[in-house]
Amino acid sequence: MDRDETEIRELIARWMQATKAGDHDAVLELMCDDVVFLTPGLPPFGKPEFAAAQRQQQAMAMRIDSHGEVLEVHVAGDWAFAHARLRVEVRKGDSDQTFVRSGHALSIFRREQGRWRLARDANLLAPE
Amino acid sequence: MDRDETEIRELIARWMQATKAGDHDAVLELMCDDVVFLTPGLPPFGKPEFAAAQRQQQAMAMRIDSHGEVLEVHVAGDWAFAHARLRVEVRKGDSDQTFVRSGHALSIFRREQGRWRLARDANLLAPE
Repeated sequence: MDRDETEIRELIARWMQATKAGDHDAVLELMCDDVVFLTPGLPPFGKPEFAAAQRQQQAMAMRIDSHGEVLEVHVAGDWAFAHARLRVEVRKGDSDQTFVRSGHALSIFRREQGRWRLARDANLLAPE
Repeated sequence: MDRDETEIRELIARWMQATKAGDHDAVLELMCDDVVFLTPGLPPFGKPEFAAAQRQQQAMAMRIDSHGEVLEVHVAGDWAFAHARLRVEVRKGDSDQTFVRSGHALSIFRREQGRWRLARDANLLAPE
């Protein structure tokens, strides 16, 4: 596995760890300023909307536990893409109820000043 | 707009035209043999499953009319990606009823022997 592929796999792992830890700034650092998120049934959104959703999750004391398997990473110069299978468990406060979404994601990364960041993301996760 | 971007936009337009015309072989020519299609709630599938769906659509006399707007194309060497907003109308036989799905798609293309082909596709269309 070459260095770029390793760095992109580490980015995905760091994203899930920082999300679980509630470290919002660390997650925001992993995406480009012009990132575009695509999800089923919603208009595309960017970094400001992602940050607003993080604040809402914090206000609702949501805990987010993500697991995944990176099935493919391909690097082309300063761009790369990854295909991953993901499972995200969301729990609100002290609730016993867990909402689970699972499915696949196709993500595009860009190298900015030597660091890989998420640039475009198609998230196809559906409720289990 | 450079030549590669023009060719990729033409590929997308040709895909929609050939689908509408029921020209299945022409559509299959526009994708790599190892293409991976991602859709919400379904496991990933490839070219053989795509071809089987085409045959089923033909058996059911389905007519598929797609329209779309390519919002972004970016080329990186022999790889490229596109983000498009799509609207697909499906009509079965002589039925008056039309099923409409709309939404966004994130697609990755690869240049093979000088020709761009679809390599990975995340289709986030949802029923309207």
